[in-house]
Parts: sequence; structure tokens; C-alpha cells
Amino acid sequence: MGLFSLFSFITAAILLGCVLGDHYHPSAPGSRTSSAKREEMDPKFWNDKAQAGIQARLSQLQAANRARNVVMFLGDGMSMPTISAARALLGQRRGDTGEEAELTFDTFPTVGLIKTYCVDAQVADSACSATAYLCGVKTNYGVLGVNAAVPRTDCEASVDKSTHLQSIVDWALADGRDTGIVTTTRITHASPAGAYAKTADRYWESDADVKKAGFDTDRCPDIAHQLIHNHPGNKLKVIFGGGRANFLPNSIRDDEQTFGSRTDNRNLIQEWQQDKVDRNIKHEYIWHREQLMRAKNDLPEYMLGLFESGHMQYNMLANQTTEPTLAEMTEVAIRSLSRNEKGFFLFVEGGRIDHAHHDNFVELALDETLEMDKAVKRAAELLSEEDSLIVVTADHSHVLAYNGYAPRGNDILGTSVFYANYTWDGMPYMTLSYTNGPGFRHHVNDGRPNVTDEENYGTVNWHSPVDVPLSYETHGGDEVVVFARGPHHSMFTGLYEQSQLPHLMAYAACIGPGRHACSAATHALAQPVLLLTLFILLASFGVK
Amino acid sequence: MGLFSLFSFITAAILLGCVLGDHYHPSAPGSRTSSAKREEMDPKFWNDKAQAGIQARLSQLQAANRARNVVMFLGDGMSMPTISAARALLGQRRGDTGEEAELTFDTFPTVGLIKTYCVDAQVADSACSATAYLCGVKTNYGVLGVNAAVPRTDCEASVDKSTHLQSIVDWALADGRDTGIVTTTRITHASPAGAYAKTADRYWESDADVKKAGFDTDRCPDIAHQLIHNHPGNKLKVIFGGGRANFLPNSIRDDEQTFGSRTDNRNLIQEWQQDKVDRNIKHEYIWHREQLMRAKNDLPEYMLGLFESGHMQYNMLANQTTEPTLAEMTEVAIRSLSRNEKGFFLFVEGGRIDHAHHDNFVELALDETLEMDKAVKRAAELLSEEDSLIVVTADHSHVLAYNGYAPRGNDILGTSVFYANYTWDGMPYMTLSYTNGPGFRHHVNDGRPNVTDEENYGTVNWHSPVDVPLSYETHGGDEVVVFARGPHHSMFTGLYEQSQLPHLMAYAACIGPGRHACSAATHALAQPVLLLTLFILLASFGVK
Repeated sequence: MGLFSLFSFITAAILLGCVLGDHYHPSAPGSRTSSAKREEMDPKFWNDKAQAGIQARLSQLQAANRARNVVMFLGDGMSMPTISAARALLGQRRGDTGEEAELTFDTFPTVGLIKTYCVDAQVADSACSATAYLCGVKTNYGVLGVNAAVPRTDCEASVDKSTHLQSIVDWALADGRDTGIVTTTRITHASPAGAYAKTADRYWESDADVKKAGFDTDRCPDIAHQLIHNHPGNKLKVIFGGGRANFLPNSIRDDEQTFGSRTDNRNLIQEWQQDKVDRNIKHEYIWHREQLMRAKNDLPEYMLGLFESGHMQYNMLANQTTEPTLAEMTEVAIRSLSRNEKGFFLFVEGGRIDHAHHDNFVELALDETLEMDKAVKRAAELLSEEDSLIVVTADHSHVLAYNGYAPRGNDILGTSVFYANYTWDGMPYMTLSYTNGPGFRHHVNDGRPNVTDEENYGTVNWHSPVDVPLSYETHGGDEVVVFARGPHHSMFTGLYEQSQLPHLMAYAACIGPGRHACSAATHALAQPVLLLTLFILLASFGVK
Repeated sequence: MGLFSLFSFITAAILLGCVLGDHYHPSAPGSRTSSAKREEMDPKFWNDKAQAGIQARLSQLQAANRARNVVMFLGDGMSMPTISAARALLGQRRGDTGEEAELTFDTFPTVGLIKTYCVDAQVADSACSATAYLCGVKTNYGVLGVNAAVPRTDCEASVDKSTHLQSIVDWALADGRDTGIVTTTRITHASPAGAYAKTADRYWESDADVKKAGFDTDRCPDIAHQLIHNHPGNKLKVIFGGGRANFLPNSIRDDEQTFGSRTDNRNLIQEWQQDKVDRNIKHEYIWHREQLMRAKNDLPEYMLGLFESGHMQYNMLANQTTEPTLAEMTEVAIRSLSRNEKGFFLFVEGGRIDHAHHDNFVELALDETLEMDKAVKRAAELLSEEDSLIVVTADHSHVLAYNGYAPRGNDILGTSVFYANYTWDGMPYMTLSYTNGPGFRHHVNDGRPNVTDEENYGTVNWHSPVDVPLSYETHGGDEVVVFARGPHHSMFTGLYEQSQLPHLMAYAACIGPGRHACSAATHALAQPVLLLTLFILLASFGVK
């Protein structure tokens, strides 16, 4: 095999030698300039842009206030290439070349990088990473809200309260702020559950899951139950997402005629309602977009919105009558939580970027990224930079690559036509592809099949090609980006462990057990100002 | 094909359904904990680490001085996953699990992200990107030091001086500072040439290249000629790299018995020497590591070091007697340039990260990354944070992916054993792999060959597996990272065009045509301090 591979390589190298010379990079005289933008040919365009960037940094508001409000956006699996490609798609949908487009969070003043590995895993899942970015502690792959002393699926180990971690939701509540969670996945899925659950397995979402694993829900309550009955889940004033089935008995149908999944005959939605009735608190359970739109005008104190039996639908495939967008849910959440004078913490997840990647459905992954960016835009419009910190990040990377070398403005979802002449088999390849996943194709005539011949090529449920066949594409181990805007945003730069993120948010918001900006806030200016004041006072006394 | 692919998917999904359930992420009870680090099981470990990070930011020296010295490190093709995997390799070579290791530049206080596309290309090459990060202007794929009005290989268009761009080397020289370039590639290769050349084609490195393309070297002088005879190349006090052949006639052999490549019978090394003799300047041409080590103790004013006929050798394969390391070259360059009281600009390239990636030689790519990090470490030791800005970045990404989900501490160059059970073919796959390149393998028995059976598996010249067969793996279009330390480092955060980078360096160093920190330096503190002073003065007058 080694010899054969070597032979292929040498043959191809000889064949292409006359084209490529000894150069690693192709020459393409002339053919590219058509897609270039005219104003970009003038150096002034780039010089002015750079100088404007410098000016923007210098006039950037570095609010020394504490962050009254914190909104954390989590793009599940939103890797660096996902962001780059989504940006190009955004621009191309607007009819532009695409690469120069800007996402809302692209314009945030501060950028940082986050190391995502777990205590026992090189590449993170959404559970150990949620524990890191919400509770501030790295833990084992697959567990939530407990430390790494709890092996995955070890119910008994997780009963020990000393393994339980507080999340930034606890910290915010302890300070009298309001809290909420919004997601496009099941509300009991790993990322949102990181805010409220403590469990040895992320998949113990309903009592049926716990029992199937052979455990007793009295010892290890399911995640849905924890959300409704335990602190801090039962204090969340806004809960929006999918996942109704985990809250309903398997004997009854929900409003969309789907059966629940619980085997304990409990209706947790009713129990949530009954708790508010008992406490005489204005509340509303909703399951339909119109209810959400109506609630905006007469907000109850508590809202539980479960818009799907399972995950919410992909934006591009959604029933737009029943399913609100992430931006719509985010807006209602912010309007609701903003009523607390003390401020709030809100977690918003674009959770299906990850699912689309796992299926090698790249267009859906990019579209879900753009949907999250719309939610970020809505939040940035509703909240002031002076008192509201907005943080946008991802939990882990994916194995999507952005292949060279298409001309400027080439369809980001299309083939890299320009360089196709250089493939050994003369066939084109996709600009976006993955290293593994269900997009595996068997070879035809000892080579790659021509994917562009496939009948569903270019549709949203077309699998991007891969080398390694896996039912679900894997996450990636490279760092993810953090974007920050608002009070103390500059604290979020640098490269650091994912577990540092909630500590930074807590610092800016002056909540939680660690160091606070409020105690350190005078630091940056205080020293020179105080010294100068002292000097001036002494001098003026001396003069007299 | 579409149907077949769908069929494969469904079959595999059914087969694996019982294992994976409806979950996108595998369960792996128990098996991981062995590789976890004991201290990481204690939440205190993570909380203390996070608080230390906050403290470090607060006590971070934000030198308001201008940057007297600027060292720019360029990892050619050093994408985000390259950095992540190199870090793991560093830790594993030290006998640790790896993921928690820190590169020198990982610890720099500020991180930013750079958009790398060219005016006419979605994915950059090293020429348009060098023009962006050294001249501050985006241009066409394949051209150097000229704006996008020059189509690639259009000699006549590039004769027009109005298309020529100044680089940060020009800006530094105009301010009386010294300048140097260091690389592991040919010194006439795209990245270093961005500092001094103006040409319609990056591959016109010797006169033979220009003539082969049908042009006259009087109209379009080759890059080697420009380095020796044109401004600013002829003002560079340090020039270290490979690429001797482009400076010597094809009729003579160099000190290592390799023929030159020039057809104009000119010996540019002698011409460089003669120029210094004529001007009575102390100078030295060197080609051997020992000469470099000796020069350190008696530094001439000008040094030209050409250590190879072509590119310098990969560190892991190098003749260590004749080839200096990048760190060694960097140290001598800094010692030499530091003699100028006004300061210096030095460009240092780890240029062969890119070449190793193009060949799918992942271990070499990571090792070259670690070699550049050693050079960064040397620079950080030699230069003070108070007056020296160090910037580390890449010119473009690559299509390397870091596949999940190996356990913590698993060989970063090995297979993802844990998840291999989930592949449709039951075969393992590499943790690191590329989407395209020469590592293509023909299928065997209608499936992937088992790469671990290959006889040269695990050796440095073993091609990582890919899906798309290309003689050379392509660059990637996703953003690259910038790390900054020293005066005005915080200006380098955010996400911005690659062309902004030299403007930011020029701002911090107070050189070049744009805005300078020296004129704006008082901005951050001046307003509150002045207002307070005024207030105190008025108040004290009022009191009297």
C-alpha cells in the first residue's frame, strides 16, 4: 500500500510537473481578475480601512461600569471555518462576492481563543464543555455540572453533593438578578443543561433514560426533572427551546399530537404551572410562535416555551407559523429579563449548527450560524454597550475545512473549479468539505465518484464528501473563538482554558465567588489619577 | 450515486442505531478516566487557574511607550488546528498528556483574528497575503508589492511605479531604524519578498524565471536582483535564509557544490559584497552554521546568510552542522539590529510549516511550528516588553483537521482509537488528517485501505490520508490568529483584514504614513487626568 501510494504520488507529480514546476502553489495568469472588486484595486481603499480600524479602537468605549446584564451566545460547534464560510454565505446571499461581509459579532471589539479539551478527552463534547463555560471547571466527557471525580454514567458518584458545581446562573441569582436560557435544541440537551443540571450522563434527559441505564431516579433525577424542580432551574424566568417530550408522560399527546417520553406518568409542564399558581406568580407556558409574539406585549414573570417535541426545526426547513426564530426568542427573553433593575444573565444557544455538521449538511450549518448572528444583532440593538456584556463563542470545533483556491466570490457552497484542473482524477471538489462523517462515497473505477453528478447535489440534505465513513461527523480539537462587547470586553482577549470564561463574565458582572471588576474597577485609572492629584495638592500647598 | 449514498447512510444508521441511539455523540463509559490528570479532578485547580488569568490581565503591563523594536513572526500556513496540534505534540514530547501545554506565543496577552482573502481569490496564497501583512494593502493572488491593478504575470503593468507599494521595511528605514529578514525558505520566496520586492509574479525569483516567462529583466527585474540592488532590499542589514542558487550563475558551484540558477552570469553575492566594500562598510557573507555562531561575537554591520541552495532543510531532517535553527538565526539578527538606538523592524518566517502541509507531512508541519515557537521564545527573552512589540501570526490557513474523539493524552500523531469502533468499515482513522493532497489512497475491497498497515506509517514522510487527490494540499480560507506582546499589544485584538496588520505595527512603532501611538499616546489617560487636575485646581482656587 505504501509503495502503491508512493507510485501514485510520483506518477502524478511527473504528470503535473510541467504545469506546476517545483512550486507548491498553482499559477493562474489572468483568469481571476474578473471577480475582483474595483475599489479594492486602489491602495487607498485598504489604507483608509486600516486607519478607520485604528481610530475605532482608540474611540472604543471601554466602559468601566460593571456589566449589569450578560448575554452569552453559544454557537454549538461553531468552529473558525464555520464562521468564515457563514460570512461568505451571508455576503453572497446579498449578491456580493461574500468574503468581505461582516457578521454582527465580527465587529465586536475584542477577540479571544479558548482551549476546549476535557479532563479525560482530547476533543470535547458539548457536556464537558458546557460545564467549563458555565460552571468554570473542566470535567469529564459526557458529564454535566459535576467535577471530574464523577466518571461518566456513575450515578452513585454523582449523588455526592461535593462533586456538584455551581453555574453562573447560580451566581447571578445569588446577586438578585434574573436568569434565562434559550436554545434551538431540546432544553434538556447538554449545552443549556450545563446551566442547571448535575448529572453523570448528559443523555439522562427523561426518567426513561435514567431507568434504561439501570438507575433509580430518586438517586439520579433526570435532567427535565432537575430543570422544573431543582435550584437553579426552577428559578429561571425564561426557558425557551425544544424538547417537550421529556416533560410529558408517554401516554399523552402534546399540542402537536406527539407522545411524551416519560414513564413516570408525570406531566412536568403542569407541575411547573402548578408551582407558579401555588406561589401566585404570573406565568405562561407556550408552544407556538404566535403565543410568543403575543407574550411580548404582556410579559408574565415566568415563561416556559417548548416549541417542539424534540429539537427545534432547522431554520431553512422550519414551519414558520409554529416555530419562532432564535432572534425572536432572544428578543422576548431580553425584554422579559430587562425588567429586573439589578440586571440579568441570559444564555442563548444556536444549537443545531452542531447537528448539521454531524450530518455533513454544510449549508444548514452555515444557515444556523447566520440565524444565531441575527439573534446577536437583535441583542446588540436592544442592549447598551455601557451596561450589557455580550459574549459570543462556541463549545468546540468541527472538522470542516475551507479548501483553496476558488476565485473571489465563487459560490461558497460550490466546487473549487479553478483548482480542479490539478486533481489527479481531473474531477472538481467542494470548497467546503469534512474529513469524516456520513458523506463517505465508495470509489468508482478506482477513483472518487464525481459528486457533482449526484441528483441531490446542492440541496440542503446533500452530504458533503469525506474520507472517513462515520455515521456522525466528529467534533474538532482546535480552539474556538470568543467575541466580546460591552463592559470589560478587553478582559476576554488572549488564549485560555474554556473554564476561565464564566469567571471572566462574573468578573465583569461582579457576581460569583471570584474577583470582581467592582472591587478592581478603579485599578486602571486610579493609580495615575491619585498620584497626580496628590502631586498637585502637595505642589499647591508648597506654593502657598 | 445519490441513492446509493443514501442507502449506505441508512444501512449504517440502522446498524449503529443500537450503539448510538439517536445521539450524535458516542458514549464511552468508564474507559477514559485513566488518562485524566489527578489535580484536574479538583474544581479548585480550574478556579485558581481562572483567577490567576484574571489577575494576570489586571497586572499586565500596557506599555504606553512607542515600540522601539518590532519583531514580526510569520508561521507560513500556521492555521488554528496547526497551533492546537503542535501544542499537544510539544506537551507529549515532554512526557505529558499534551493538551494543557503552552507555546510561548500562547501566553501573549492579546489575540486577534485576520481575514486572509485576496482581491481576486477566496483563499490566499503567500504572495497576496505577504503584500497585505507587510505593505498594508490587499492585492491579487500571486503578485508581490504591487496593488491589484497589476494582473498576475503582467510584466508591463508592474513597470508602472504608481502600482508599487511601500512595505513596513520602508517605513522603518525612513525613520532611521534598522531592518532585517530571516526565513527558512528561499530568501526570494513570497513571504520574505513581500518586504522588499515589487513583481507581477512571485515565481520570478531569478533572471531565468523572468526570461522563461518571456519577459525582459530590464523591465521586470527578478526578485533576487531586487533584493541586492533595489531599495529597500539593499538596506536590509540582516538577510538570513536559503535560496543561494538564485544569486549565482548556473555555470558555477556554490560552497556546497550546487550550481546556481542564473543565466545572466551575474554573481549577486559578490555584487552585494562589492557594494559594501565600495562603501567601506563592515560586512559578511555566510553559508554555514558555524560562521553564524562566530558572527554573534563580532557582528558586522551587514550580514547576508544563505544556508542552502534552495529552501533550508526541515528541522527534523537537517544537517545540524551546516544548518542553523530558526531560533539561532533570530538571535543573531536581534543582537545585530539591537545596536541601532532608534530601534529596528525584523521579519522572521517559519516558512516550511506550509511546505510540510502541502505534502500532508503533518509531523514535519507541527515540528516546524515548534521550531518557530522556539525562535519566538528566544526573541521574548532577548527583548523587553516595555519597548519591543512581538507579533506572531500566519499568512493563511490550511485544510488540516483535528478529528475527535481520542482520550486525553492520546498520541496526537496517532489514530483516534476510541472512536474507531464507530466507523462503518471498523477501521481506525488518524486524529490529524487533511481534506485534500497527495495522501490520497485508492480504495481496497470497496472501502478505505487500513492505513496503519502501511510500512512507513508513523514516519515523517508518511502522507496523512485525504479524500481529494491533489499533488499539493491546498491552503484554507478560514481566519488566522495574531498574538501580540509589548507596547500597544491590545490594539491587535478584534477581527480584521490582513492588510490592517502593518498599520497596527506602524501605529505602535510610530512609523509610516498613518496614525501613530506617539501622537495619540496620551489619549487613554489624558482626558480623565486633565479633567481631574482642572477640577482640583479650580477647587483649590475656590477654597482660598
